[in-house]
Formats: sequence, C-alpha cells, structure tokens
Amino acid sequence: FNQAVLQHIEALFERRKIALNPLTRDQAMVPEVATVIPNRVGTAPLLWFEKGEQLLVSMPGVPSEMRTAMQEEIIPRLKQSFRLSSYQRRDYLVTGFSESALAAHLTSFEDQLAAPFSLAYLPTYEGIRLRLSAWGEEHAGEMERQDRLLRELLGSHCISFGEKSAEALLGEMLVKRGLTLSTAESCTGGYIAHLITSIPGASSWYMGSVVAYDNSIKEKLLQVKKETLAMQGAVSREVAEEMIRGVAAATGTSCAIAVTGIMGPEGGSQEKPVGTVWVATRCRQELIAREYSVGNNRAQNIERTAGIAITQLLRMLQQEAVS
Amino acid sequence: FNQAVLQHIEALFERRKIALNPLTRDQAMVPEVATVIPNRVGTAPLLWFEKGEQLLVSMPGVPSEMRTAMQEEIIPRLKQSFRLSSYQRRDYLVTGFSESALAAHLTSFEDQLAAPFSLAYLPTYEGIRLRLSAWGEEHAGEMERQDRLLRELLGSHCISFGEKSAEALLGEMLVKRGLTLSTAESCTGGYIAHLITSIPGASSWYMGSVVAYDNSIKEKLLQVKKETLAMQGAVSREVAEEMIRGVAAATGTSCAIAVTGIMGPEGGSQEKPVGTVWVATRCRQELIAREYSVGNNRAQNIERTAGIAITQLLRMLQQEAVS
Repeated sequence: FNQAVLQHIEALFERRKIALNPLTRDQAMVPEVATVIPNRVGTAPLLWFEKGEQLLVSMPGVPSEMRTAMQEEIIPRLKQSFRLSSYQRRDYLVTGFSESALAAHLTSFEDQLAAPFSLAYLPTYEGIRLRLSAWGEEHAGEMERQDRLLRELLGSHCISFGEKSAEALLGEMLVKRGLTLSTAESCTGGYIAHLITSIPGASSWYMGSVVAYDNSIKEKLLQVKKETLAMQGAVSREVAEEMIRGVAAATGTSCAIAVTGIMGPEGGSQEKPVGTVWVATRCRQELIAREYSVGNNRAQNIERTAGIAITQLLRMLQQEAVS
Repeated sequence: FNQAVLQHIEALFERRKIALNPLTRDQAMVPEVATVIPNRVGTAPLLWFEKGEQLLVSMPGVPSEMRTAMQEEIIPRLKQSFRLSSYQRRDYLVTGFSESALAAHLTSFEDQLAAPFSLAYLPTYEGIRLRLSAWGEEHAGEMERQDRLLRELLGSHCISFGEKSAEALLGEMLVKRGLTLSTAESCTGGYIAHLITSIPGASSWYMGSVVAYDNSIKEKLLQVKKETLAMQGAVSREVAEEMIRGVAAATGTSCAIAVTGIMGPEGGSQEKPVGTVWVATRCRQELIAREYSVGNNRAQNIERTAGIAITQLLRMLQQEAVS
C-alpha cells in the first residue's frame, strides 16, 4: 500500500468535488518491487520494474493519461537510463510539392545519399515533412554537409526546420512581429481555431473566431452581403474576401484567415464539386484568396483545409519578411 | 499494370489541378494475383490477396486513407466473407457516475452475470460507455433479460443506447424537435464547434459559434459587459450566462451552449485553479450554468469540457421531453 498514491488520489477527488470509493482507493495498492511514479493527470500510478537488464513499465490505459505519462515521465527516464545521443536527425517542412513531385525533385540528392543516412517522407496536411537521419556520432560532419545540400535544393519551399507544427510556427512569427490573428470559418467549423488554441499561450496573439456555418451568421456577424451570397454562392472568392474583411473589422486584428468550402458528403454540384475550397489570408492591408480542391472525405477535407489555410498565411508572412 | 487505377489517379490529379508524374503513375502497377479495390480518397489502391484459407489485405499508409478504406471497403467485405452474426452486443452511455462509482453501483449485476457474458467499462469524455457482450447466437434470450436488468439499474443515468457519439445524439434530438443550436466558446477554442460540424448534415441544425478567446471578443461579439468581466472574472457563472444570452441573441437559435474556463498550463490561481470551468446550456427560455473541475492537462481539459458541455445540453433536452 502506497500512502503517497492515496494522498494524490484524494487530492484529485477533492478538487473535482467527488467522493472517494473503495475501488478507487485500491489503486494505491502497488507491488513492492515497483518504483512508483506519480500520474499527474489521473489516479492509476505508473509502475517501473527493473530486474538486471530487463525493464518493464506499466502505464494507465486511458489514452490521454498514457500520453502524458509517456511524454513527461517515461521518455525522459529512458533518455537518462540509455545512451541515445548517437542518433542524428534533421527535420524540414516542405510546401508546394506533391509527395511524388518532391521525390522527383530530390532524385539526385537521394542518389548520392549513402548509408547510414536515410531520408523519410512524411506527408501531412501542412505539407510534406522530410526527416534526414543517421545513427552514429561520427557522422555529425557529414550530416552538416547533407543538411546544407538539402536546404539548397528545397529553397523557399522549405517553410520550417525542426518538428514544430505550422500553427506553432505561425504563433511564433506573429508574436515576433507584434501581430494578432482572428479567423472566420465556414466549412472547417472551428477546426482552425481548435488547432491554434491547442497551443499553450495562444491567447497572447489569437483573439478568436467566428464560425459562420450557416449563411445567416455570415451576414449577421461578418457583414457578408446577401447579394454576394445569392450571386456568387457561399463558396466563392467574393464571400471569402467579405468574410475576412468582416472578421478583421469585428475583432480589430492585424492578420486574419477566412475559409469557405464544400466538405461533403452532401452539398457538391457539377460546377463546385465536394472538396472545392476558397481560402483567404490577410496581413495588414494585403489580402490573398485562392481556390483549392481538397478531396472527397469529410474528416480529411476539414483537416486538409485547415492545414492549407494556416500554411497560406505562414508563407505570406515569410514573403513579407523577405521583401 | 491496372488501367482502372491509372484512370482513377488521373481523375484525382485533374480535379486537384496538378500534373501527374511517373512516380505517381507507378502506383497503377499491381501484382497480378491481387484483387484491386479502388481507393476512393487517394491514389494507392487497396490490394486483396486470397490463397486457400489465408487472406492478406494491403492498404494505403496515409492514416485517413487507411481509415476510409477499412470502414468503407474492408470491414464490409470481411463481414461478407466470414460469419460474425453470433456476436451479441449492447452499448450504453452513462453519465453522472465516476468509473469506480458505477462499478460499485453495478456490483450485484456483475456478480450474477455468468460466462460467456461480459461487461466492459469504456470511460470517455461524454461519460462512461458500457458494453455488454457475449459470443453465441443461443444466448439471444439471455441477452434480452440481462439488457432489461441493466437498463433498470442505470435508469436515467443512461443517456443513450448504442454506439453514437453525444454530439450525434444531440443533433438527432434537435432535428426531431425542430430546434437549432449555436455555441459561444472561450476555453474550448472551437473544439465544440469542430465536434458538431464533423457530423455530416450538421448545417441543418447548427448555425455557428463565436470563439471568444480574448475578452475583447466577448464584449464586441457577445455583448458581455466590461463590468462583469472586471468584477467576476472571465471564468464565472455570470460571464457564462452573458455569453450564452449574447450568442443566442446574435444567432437567433433556440438552443445554445457557452463555456469559459482555465485549460492550463498557465492562467490558474489559488481561487480558480487550472481546470475550473463554467458551462451554460440553454433551451428556449430555460438556462442552466454549472461549475466543473476538469483536470490539469490542456489537451485533455479541452476534450473533457467539450464532452461535458454537449452532455449537459443533451440531458437538459431529455428531461424537458420527460416533463
């Protein structure tokens, strides 16, 4: 029986204002040979067993608790216990290429790349992530050389180095320039706002979103004109542009994103099939609106459109920085 | 070489307005012994190999493509090829209990439950999902009896039977009664809107959301009073109530949800620690606002708060139906 675990469970239940029952209390019963690691976000403790060269870790089954435990407790401990420093790795986020077009572009680079170096393609909704890696500290010099070669080939198509998400990069760039952001979402239904507000501290640069799912909301809250909706349809350059002007006026932010599109399975037509999307991005007085065709799976379309919208603003900010 | 696969890829690329290159074209090269199943949402086809009693299926590696392929093509084919009808199963969504309190409540039920019947507890953010199952068609009668017993024990704590998500249930209930919904989200940052708009056809009953992440947006778009924010703080019953009145007035919907809280890691205080949340739900003139304490992991807090908010409105609608 572990007193510290029980105290942790009791504190958790008190905060949530619920009574403790014997079944939960029993989670403080742990094997004597185990090292008990507290579970910061739940009741079942982590158990770490070591015997000679063998290591066994028991983690809570609730997915979010397991994730937190793995990231905050287990991976740092594994890094301490084992020597991992010989793994060399570089990450790149590339836009403006399909996966196979990028592979064609990098044929000569890959041809000269020798073991133990390898290049992995990880397509995401924000673009393609490339990972150049090799085992062995002795390859640090060669990694530098290959990294330079690859950066040169990718040019401005590489919008970031490292593992950060596009929304995290966007946040850093906005903070650095003292800019603020708001969004006006139709078809993505709040998913862009969700990606952005998942970043801790986003409240310092992100003001909010108008999720104008129904056309009446586009009119009432974003001042989109009834005639524009009737003449051009909700999925059009004109509506995307009126939405972005409307949200910028309503929130007073220096940058904004607006999206309108058809995610499916219903709502498509011959002229505007499922997957048709208009994305507008604005930074101060500059405004870009572009049409995309994202696909025919609703969940995937929402994710893709959000990725495209964030990346479009990111590239706009980067080009502004260059010019 | 499979002509149909190539034609599918070409059509997909044409719709996305990008040129086809030889590497993508090679995805139309497939083994002769395979049955080729089209990939509706991507380029790499599904391959189905059968040899005697052995079955091997190859699916695309992109997670969303694999998911679509599994759900739309592979599972239906597996159900056709194999006899699965002997699996008996009932699902229940239960709220108002912690997992262990529910287990205590169901002790006598579980004691009388004999093999091959089993009861699984699956905690989710919307409540606890219970799954009663047994293999063997001969147990259909006993399944009926156990189902009745369990329903009686759960009473009104069971808010749904079957596997549907709380937001899908909410949608069905709103449509049935001719009601409409809007949301005002602070701490969940658009996640409630995202859950709702992930349901195909949500546009017939869901109007939209004001994601009032910054307090200035609460004032400008939701008419929350500056004095209320200053006196009570953004995370308070009063602000949640003003937010819900504001969004209902701005959108004209008959039902609404408003949430405000502290998701962490920053922003907590002695008086209002991370995890403090106020959830308001409204149906016509009735309004409920409740305080919750959700935890100390940001991503988990956002998911939990969204689940709680949707469930709170769902229960409100169910009680209205009863009274």
